[in-house]
Amino acid sequence: MPRARGRRPAGSNTREAIEAAAKHQFAELGYPRTTLRAVAREADVDTRLVTHYFGSKQNLFISVVDFPFDPEQLAEGVLAEGPEHAGRRLAALTIRSLEDPATRQPMTGLLRAAASEDEAALLVQRILTDRMLTPLARLLSGDRPDLRAALIGAQLTGYLFARYVVALPGLADADSDELAEVVGPVLQHYLTGRLEASATD
Amino acid sequence: MPRARGRRPAGSNTREAIEAAAKHQFAELGYPRTTLRAVAREADVDTRLVTHYFGSKQNLFISVVDFPFDPEQLAEGVLAEGPEHAGRRLAALTIRSLEDPATRQPMTGLLRAAASEDEAALLVQRILTDRMLTPLARLLSGDRPDLRAALIGAQLTGYLFARYVVALPGLADADSDELAEVVGPVLQHYLTGRLEASATD
Repeated sequence: MPRARGRRPAGSNTREAIEAAAKHQFAELGYPRTTLRAVAREADVDTRLVTHYFGSKQNLFISVVDFPFDPEQLAEGVLAEGPEHAGRRLAALTIRSLEDPATRQPMTGLLRAAASEDEAALLVQRILTDRMLTPLARLLSGDRPDLRAALIGAQLTGYLFARYVVALPGLADADSDELAEVVGPVLQHYLTGRLEASATD
Repeated sequence: MPRARGRRPAGSNTREAIEAAAKHQFAELGYPRTTLRAVAREADVDTRLVTHYFGSKQNLFISVVDFPFDPEQLAEGVLAEGPEHAGRRLAALTIRSLEDPATRQPMTGLLRAAASEDEAALLVQRILTDRMLTPLARLLSGDRPDLRAALIGAQLTGYLFARYVVALPGLADADSDELAEVVGPVLQHYLTGRLEASATD
Protein backbone atom coordinates (compact mmCIF):
# COMPACT_ATOMS: atom_id res chain seq x y z
CA MET A 1 0.00 0.00 0.00
CA PRO A 2 1.39 3.42 -0.91
CA ARG A 3 2.02 5.88 1.92
CA ALA A 4 1.28 3.21 4.52
CA ARG A 5 4.03 4.63 6.76
CA GLY A 6 4.27 1.48 8.89
CA ARG A 7 0.59 1.40 9.78
CA ARG A 8 -1.38 -1.72 10.52
CA PRO A 9 -2.04 -3.58 7.22
CA ALA A 10 -5.35 -4.99 6.07
CA GLY A 11 -6.09 -8.23 7.89
CA SER A 12 -8.15 -10.04 10.46
CA ASN A 13 -7.55 -7.61 13.34
CA THR A 14 -7.86 -4.47 11.28
CA ARG A 15 -11.64 -4.49 11.07
CA GLU A 16 -11.89 -5.00 14.83
CA ALA A 17 -9.42 -2.18 15.48
CA ILE A 18 -11.44 0.18 13.27
CA GLU A 19 -14.68 -0.83 14.99
CA ALA A 20 -13.19 -0.26 18.45
CA ALA A 21 -11.86 3.16 17.45
CA ALA A 22 -15.18 4.13 15.87
CA LYS A 23 -17.20 3.08 18.95
CA HIS A 24 -14.88 5.11 21.12
CA GLN A 25 -15.03 8.22 18.96
CA PHE A 26 -18.79 8.18 18.30
CA ALA A 27 -19.33 7.87 22.07
CA GLU A 28 -16.78 10.53 23.03
CA LEU A 29 -17.26 13.11 20.28
CA GLY A 30 -20.78 12.46 19.07
CA TYR A 31 -21.78 11.77 15.49
CA PRO A 32 -21.12 15.16 13.87
CA ARG A 33 -17.53 15.55 15.12
CA THR A 34 -16.40 11.99 14.38
CA THR A 35 -14.39 11.69 11.14
CA LEU A 36 -13.16 8.64 9.22
CA ARG A 37 -9.69 10.18 9.25
CA ALA A 38 -9.53 10.39 13.06
CA VAL A 39 -10.99 6.88 13.42
CA ALA A 40 -8.27 5.62 11.08
CA ARG A 41 -5.63 7.44 13.10
CA GLU A 42 -6.82 5.91 16.38
CA ALA A 43 -6.98 2.44 14.78
CA ASP A 44 -3.53 3.01 13.27
CA VAL A 45 -4.65 2.25 9.72
CA ASP A 46 -4.82 4.18 6.48
CA THR A 47 -8.11 6.08 6.02
CA ARG A 48 -8.67 4.19 2.76
CA LEU A 49 -8.89 0.94 4.71
CA VAL A 50 -11.79 2.38 6.74
CA THR A 51 -13.51 3.26 3.50
CA HIS A 52 -12.68 -0.17 2.10
CA TYR A 53 -14.32 -1.99 5.01
CA PHE A 54 -17.19 0.36 5.85
CA GLY A 55 -17.75 2.58 2.82
CA SER A 56 -18.94 5.70 4.62
CA LYS A 57 -19.29 7.31 8.03
CA GLN A 58 -23.00 6.42 7.95
CA ASN A 59 -22.30 2.73 7.39
CA LEU A 60 -19.56 2.75 9.99
CA PHE A 61 -22.03 4.17 12.54
CA ILE A 62 -24.69 1.55 11.75
CA SER A 63 -22.06 -1.21 11.87
CA VAL A 64 -20.77 -0.38 15.33
CA VAL A 65 -24.01 0.49 17.16
CA ASP A 66 -24.46 -1.81 20.14
CA PHE A 67 -28.23 -2.10 20.08
CA PRO A 68 -28.88 -3.58 23.51
CA PHE A 69 -32.23 -5.30 22.86
CA ASP A 70 -32.39 -8.60 21.00
CA PRO A 71 -35.61 -8.43 18.95
CA GLU A 72 -36.42 -12.16 19.22
CA GLN A 73 -35.77 -12.36 22.94
CA LEU A 74 -37.80 -9.23 23.49
CA ALA A 75 -40.73 -10.56 21.45
CA GLU A 76 -40.68 -13.83 23.35
CA GLY A 77 -40.57 -12.03 26.71
CA VAL A 78 -43.35 -9.63 25.78
CA LEU A 79 -45.77 -12.37 24.76
CA ALA A 80 -44.87 -14.80 27.57
CA GLU A 81 -48.13 -14.17 29.47
CA GLY A 82 -50.44 -13.61 26.49
CA PRO A 83 -51.33 -10.51 24.47
CA GLU A 84 -53.46 -8.97 27.24
CA HIS A 85 -50.34 -8.66 29.43
CA ALA A 86 -47.97 -7.64 26.62
CA GLY A 87 -47.97 -3.93 27.57
CA ARG A 88 -47.07 -4.61 31.18
CA ARG A 89 -44.39 -7.11 30.15
CA LEU A 90 -42.88 -4.76 27.55
CA ALA A 91 -42.82 -1.89 30.07
CA ALA A 92 -41.18 -4.10 32.71
CA LEU A 93 -38.58 -5.52 30.33
CA THR A 94 -37.54 -2.21 28.79
CA ILE A 95 -37.81 0.03 31.86
CA ARG A 96 -35.87 -2.37 34.07
CA SER A 97 -33.22 -2.92 31.38
CA LEU A 98 -32.68 0.83 31.10
CA GLU A 99 -31.67 0.95 34.77
CA ASP A 100 -28.47 -0.84 33.71
CA PRO A 101 -25.95 1.64 32.27
CA ALA A 102 -24.74 -1.05 29.83
CA THR A 103 -28.22 -1.06 28.25
CA ARG A 104 -29.00 2.60 28.75
CA GLN A 105 -25.86 4.21 27.34
CA PRO A 106 -26.18 2.77 23.81
CA MET A 107 -29.79 4.00 23.76
CA THR A 108 -29.03 7.51 25.03
CA GLY A 109 -26.15 7.50 22.51
CA LEU A 110 -28.62 6.82 19.69
CA LEU A 111 -30.90 9.56 20.97
CA ARG A 112 -28.03 12.07 21.16
CA ALA A 113 -26.89 11.12 17.67
CA ALA A 114 -30.41 11.54 16.27
CA ALA A 115 -30.71 14.99 17.87
CA SER A 116 -27.35 16.13 16.50
CA GLU A 117 -28.02 16.35 12.76
CA ASP A 118 -30.41 15.14 10.07
CA GLU A 119 -28.00 12.59 8.59
CA ALA A 120 -27.66 10.87 11.96
CA ALA A 121 -31.43 11.06 12.61
CA LEU A 122 -32.00 9.08 9.42
CA LEU A 123 -29.53 6.41 10.54
CA VAL A 124 -31.22 6.17 13.94
CA GLN A 125 -34.58 5.88 12.20
CA ARG A 126 -33.22 2.87 10.26
CA ILE A 127 -31.69 1.26 13.35
CA LEU A 128 -34.82 1.66 15.52
CA THR A 129 -37.08 0.50 12.71
CA ASP A 130 -35.02 -2.55 11.73
CA ARG A 131 -34.09 -3.74 15.21
CA MET A 132 -37.11 -2.83 17.32
CA LEU A 133 -40.21 -1.48 15.58
CA THR A 134 -40.49 -3.93 12.68
CA PRO A 135 -40.05 -6.98 14.97
CA LEU A 136 -42.58 -5.41 17.36
CA ALA A 137 -45.05 -4.67 14.56
CA ARG A 138 -44.80 -8.33 13.45
CA LEU A 139 -46.17 -9.39 16.84
CA LEU A 140 -49.31 -7.32 16.34
CA SER A 141 -52.28 -8.94 14.72
CA GLY A 142 -54.58 -5.88 14.74
CA ASP A 143 -54.85 -2.78 12.58
CA ARG A 144 -52.08 -0.26 11.95
CA PRO A 145 -49.11 -2.27 13.27
CA ASP A 146 -46.55 0.33 12.08
CA LEU A 147 -48.34 3.19 13.83
CA ARG A 148 -48.71 1.14 17.03
CA ALA A 149 -45.04 0.17 17.06
CA ALA A 150 -44.00 3.78 16.41
CA LEU A 151 -46.22 5.06 19.24
CA ILE A 152 -44.51 2.59 21.57
CA GLY A 153 -41.15 3.79 20.29
CA ALA A 154 -42.24 7.38 20.97
CA GLN A 155 -43.33 6.59 24.54
CA LEU A 156 -40.16 4.68 25.40
CA THR A 157 -37.91 7.28 23.77
CA GLY A 158 -39.63 10.02 25.75
CA TYR A 159 -39.27 8.00 28.94
CA LEU A 160 -35.54 7.54 28.29
CA PHE A 161 -35.10 11.21 27.49
CA ALA A 162 -37.15 12.61 30.37
CA ARG A 163 -35.80 10.30 33.08
CA TYR A 164 -32.14 10.01 32.13
CA VAL A 165 -31.18 12.89 29.83
CA VAL A 166 -33.24 15.80 31.20
CA ALA A 167 -33.90 14.15 34.60
CA LEU A 168 -37.34 15.68 35.14
CA PRO A 169 -38.15 16.04 38.86
CA GLY A 170 -40.70 13.45 39.97
CA LEU A 171 -39.66 11.06 37.20
CA ALA A 172 -35.88 10.91 37.63
CA ASP A 173 -36.25 9.98 41.30
CA ALA A 174 -39.14 7.50 40.98
CA ASP A 175 -38.74 3.76 41.46
CA SER A 176 -38.35 1.87 38.19
CA ASP A 177 -40.73 -0.94 39.18
CA GLU A 178 -43.39 1.63 39.97
CA LEU A 179 -42.77 3.35 36.63
CA ALA A 180 -43.10 0.04 34.78
CA GLU A 181 -46.55 -0.39 36.38
CA VAL A 182 -47.60 3.14 35.41
CA VAL A 183 -46.34 2.90 31.82
CA GLY A 184 -47.62 -0.66 31.25
CA PRO A 185 -51.26 0.31 30.53
CA VAL A 186 -50.02 2.96 28.08
CA LEU A 187 -48.05 0.41 26.07
CA GLN A 188 -51.05 -1.94 26.22
CA HIS A 189 -53.23 0.84 24.81
CA TYR A 190 -50.81 1.34 21.93
CA LEU A 191 -50.41 -2.43 21.37
CA THR A 192 -54.02 -3.57 21.40
CA GLY A 193 -56.29 -0.61 22.24
CA ARG A 194 -58.72 0.97 19.86
CA LEU A 195 -57.14 3.72 17.75
CA GLU A 196 -60.06 6.10 18.10
CA ALA A 197 -60.08 7.81 14.74
CA SER A 198 -59.18 4.73 12.72
CA ALA A 199 -62.89 4.03 12.15
CA THR A 200 -63.05 7.10 9.91
CA ASP A 201 -60.09 6.09 7.72
CA MET B 1 -15.14 51.82 27.30
CA PRO B 2 -11.60 50.58 26.59
CA ARG B 3 -11.03 48.71 23.33
CA ALA B 4 -14.57 49.44 22.19
CA ARG B 5 -13.33 49.89 18.59
CA GLY B 6 -16.45 51.73 17.47
CA ARG B 7 -18.83 49.03 18.61
CA ARG B 8 -22.40 49.59 19.70
CA PRO B 9 -22.40 51.14 23.23
CA ALA B 10 -24.55 50.02 26.14
CA GLY B 11 -28.11 51.25 25.69
CA SER B 12 -31.70 50.43 24.94
CA ASN B 13 -31.10 48.56 21.69
CA THR B 14 -28.05 46.70 22.87
CA ARG B 15 -29.88 44.12 24.91
CA GLU B 16 -32.21 43.41 21.99
CA ALA B 17 -29.27 43.12 19.58
CA ILE B 18 -27.57 40.60 21.88
CA GLU B 19 -30.78 38.59 22.25
CA ALA B 20 -31.30 38.50 18.49
CA ALA B 21 -27.71 37.37 17.89
CA ALA B 22 -27.97 34.73 20.63
CA LYS B 23 -31.24 33.30 19.26
CA HIS B 24 -29.70 33.11 15.83
CA GLN B 25 -26.52 31.39 17.02
CA PHE B 26 -28.15 28.91 19.40
CA ALA B 27 -30.49 27.89 16.57
CA GLU B 28 -27.77 27.70 13.92
CA LEU B 29 -24.84 26.25 15.87
CA GLY B 30 -26.53 24.47 18.77
CA TYR B 31 -25.78 25.05 22.44
CA PRO B 32 -22.23 23.62 22.67
CA ARG B 33 -20.75 25.58 19.78
CA THR B 34 -22.31 28.95 20.66
CA THR B 35 -19.92 31.30 22.47
CA LEU B 36 -20.49 34.66 24.20
CA ARG B 37 -17.64 36.05 22.11
CA ALA B 38 -19.28 35.15 18.79
CA VAL B 39 -22.67 36.40 20.00
CA ALA B 40 -21.02 39.71 20.94
CA ARG B 41 -19.39 39.89 17.52
CA GLU B 42 -22.69 39.33 15.69
CA ALA B 43 -24.43 41.89 17.92
CA ASP B 44 -21.53 44.30 17.36
CA VAL B 45 -20.87 44.82 21.08
CA ASP B 46 -18.03 44.14 23.46
CA THR B 47 -18.15 40.65 25.01
CA ARG B 48 -18.18 42.26 28.46
CA LEU B 49 -21.54 43.84 27.67
CA VAL B 50 -23.02 40.38 27.04
CA THR B 51 -21.66 39.30 30.42
CA HIS B 52 -22.99 42.51 31.98
CA TYR B 53 -26.54 41.92 30.74
CA PHE B 54 -26.76 38.12 30.90
CA GLY B 55 -24.00 36.92 33.21
CA SER B 56 -23.29 33.57 31.58
CA LYS B 57 -24.00 31.48 28.52
CA GLN B 58 -26.49 29.48 30.59
CA ASN B 59 -28.46 32.57 31.57
CA LEU B 60 -28.31 33.89 28.03
CA PHE B 61 -29.82 30.62 26.77
CA ILE B 62 -32.65 30.68 29.31
CA SER B 63 -33.31 34.37 28.57
CA VAL B 64 -33.74 33.93 24.84
CA VAL B 65 -35.69 30.66 24.68
CA ASP B 66 -38.99 31.20 22.91
CA PHE B 67 -41.09 28.77 24.88
CA PRO B 68 -44.14 28.52 22.65
CA PHE B 69 -46.76 27.47 25.20
CA ASP B 70 -48.27 29.98 27.59
CA PRO B 71 -48.81 28.07 30.86
CA GLU B 72 -51.99 29.95 31.86
CA GLN B 73 -53.61 29.69 28.45
CA LEU B 74 -52.71 26.02 28.27
CA ALA B 75 -54.15 25.32 31.73
CA GLU B 76 -57.36 27.11 30.83
CA GLY B 77 -57.67 25.23 27.56
CA VAL B 78 -56.95 21.88 29.14
CA LEU B 79 -59.64 22.22 31.80
CA ALA B 80 -62.25 23.86 29.54
CA GLU B 81 -64.41 20.69 29.37
CA GLY B 82 -63.75 19.37 32.86
CA PRO B 83 -61.04 17.13 34.32
CA GLU B 84 -62.39 13.95 32.68
CA HIS B 85 -61.63 15.45 29.25
CA ALA B 86 -58.32 17.08 30.23
CA GLY B 87 -56.17 14.38 28.60
CA ARG B 88 -57.93 14.65 25.27
CA ARG B 89 -57.83 18.46 25.40
CA LEU B 90 -54.14 18.53 26.32
CA ALA B 91 -53.31 16.09 23.52
CA ALA B 92 -55.30 18.10 21.00
CA LEU B 93 -53.81 21.45 22.06
CA THR B 94 -50.18 20.31 22.10
CA ILE B 95 -50.24 17.92 19.13
CA ARG B 96 -52.03 20.40 16.87
CA SER B 97 -49.73 23.25 17.97
CA LEU B 98 -46.67 21.18 17.09
CA GLU B 99 -47.87 20.96 13.47
CA ASP B 100 -46.97 24.66 13.21
CA PRO B 101 -43.21 25.10 12.63
CA ALA B 102 -43.30 28.32 14.70
CA THR B 103 -44.34 26.25 17.74
CA ARG B 104 -42.40 23.12 16.87
CA GLN B 105 -38.95 24.57 16.18
CA PRO B 106 -38.41 26.11 19.62
CA MET B 107 -39.38 22.76 21.16
CA THR B 108 -37.12 20.64 18.92
CA GLY B 109 -34.43 23.26 19.64
CA LEU B 110 -34.80 22.61 23.38
CA LEU B 111 -34.66 18.88 22.78
CA ARG B 112 -31.52 19.17 20.65
CA ALA B 113 -29.89 21.40 23.25
CA ALA B 114 -30.72 18.95 26.06
CA ALA B 115 -29.23 16.07 24.07
CA SER B 116 -26.02 17.99 23.32
CA GLU B 117 -24.39 18.21 26.76
CA ASP B 118 -25.17 17.94 30.47
CA GLU B 119 -25.00 21.69 31.11
CA ALA B 120 -27.69 22.32 28.50
CA ALA B 121 -29.80 19.39 29.75
CA LEU B 122 -29.95 21.03 33.17
CA LEU B 123 -31.11 24.31 31.62
CA VAL B 124 -33.80 22.50 29.63
CA GLN B 125 -34.88 20.73 32.81
CA ARG B 126 -35.38 24.15 34.45
CA ILE B 127 -37.23 25.61 31.47
CA LEU B 128 -39.59 22.65 31.08
CA THR B 129 -40.21 22.46 34.81
CA ASP B 130 -40.85 26.17 35.32
CA ARG B 131 -42.89 26.85 32.22
CA MET B 132 -44.82 23.62 31.69
CA LEU B 133 -44.62 20.93 34.37
CA THR B 134 -45.09 23.03 37.51
CA PRO B 135 -48.13 24.87 36.06
CA LEU B 136 -49.49 21.49 34.93
CA ALA B 137 -48.87 19.89 38.33
CA ARG B 138 -50.80 22.76 39.96
CA LEU B 139 -53.91 21.74 38.00
CA LEU B 140 -53.80 18.26 39.48
CA SER B 141 -55.67 17.61 42.69
CA GLY B 142 -54.69 13.93 43.09
CA ASP B 143 -51.60 12.14 44.35
CA ARG B 144 -48.06 12.57 42.96
CA PRO B 145 -48.62 15.71 40.85
CA ASP B 146 -44.90 16.04 40.02
CA LEU B 147 -44.65 12.46 38.76
CA ARG B 148 -47.84 12.85 36.71
CA ALA B 149 -46.65 16.09 35.12
CA ALA B 150 -43.25 14.55 34.33
CA LEU B 151 -44.87 11.47 32.74
CA ILE B 152 -46.87 13.81 30.51
CA GLY B 153 -43.66 15.67 29.68
CA ALA B 154 -42.03 12.34 28.81
CA GLN B 155 -44.88 11.29 26.51
CA LEU B 156 -45.02 14.61 24.69
CA THR B 157 -41.23 14.83 24.36
CA GLY B 158 -41.15 11.33 22.92
CA TYR B 159 -43.95 12.21 20.52
CA LEU B 160 -42.03 15.29 19.34
CA PHE B 161 -38.83 13.32 18.97
CA ALA B 162 -40.29 10.28 17.23
CA ARG B 163 -42.55 12.17 14.82
CA TYR B 164 -40.41 15.16 13.89
CA VAL B 165 -36.76 14.44 14.70
CA VAL B 166 -36.44 10.72 13.88
CA ALA B 167 -39.60 10.58 11.71
CA LEU B 168 -40.55 7.01 12.58
CA PRO B 169 -42.52 5.35 9.76
CA GLY B 170 -46.20 5.04 10.67
CA LEU B 171 -46.02 8.01 13.02
CA ALA B 172 -44.37 10.67 10.86
CA ASP B 173 -47.01 10.21 8.15
CA ALA B 174 -50.10 9.89 10.40
CA ASP B 175 -52.77 12.57 10.65
CA SER B 176 -52.30 14.86 13.65
CA ASP B 177 -55.99 14.85 14.61
CA GLU B 178 -55.92 11.07 14.65
CA LEU B 179 -52.77 11.11 16.78
CA ALA B 180 -54.37 13.51 19.25
CA GLU B 181 -57.22 11.01 19.68
CA VAL B 182 -54.81 8.12 20.22
CA VAL B 183 -52.58 9.98 22.68
CA GLY B 184 -55.48 11.59 24.59
CA PRO B 185 -56.31 8.54 26.76
CA VAL B 186 -52.61 8.18 27.61
CA LEU B 187 -52.41 11.74 28.92
CA GLN B 188 -55.69 11.17 30.79
CA HIS B 189 -54.15 8.08 32.42
CA TYR B 190 -51.17 10.11 33.56
CA LEU B 191 -53.34 13.05 34.69
CA THR B 192 -56.02 11.24 36.68
CA GLY B 193 -55.51 7.48 36.41
CA ARG B 194 -54.47 5.23 39.23
CA LEU B 195 -50.70 4.98 39.62
CA GLU B 196 -50.71 1.24 40.20
CA ALA B 197 -47.86 0.83 42.62
CA SER B 198 -48.62 3.98 44.61
CA ALA B 199 -50.75 1.93 47.02
CA THR B 200 -47.57 0.26 48.28
CA ASP B 201 -45.73 3.54 48.97
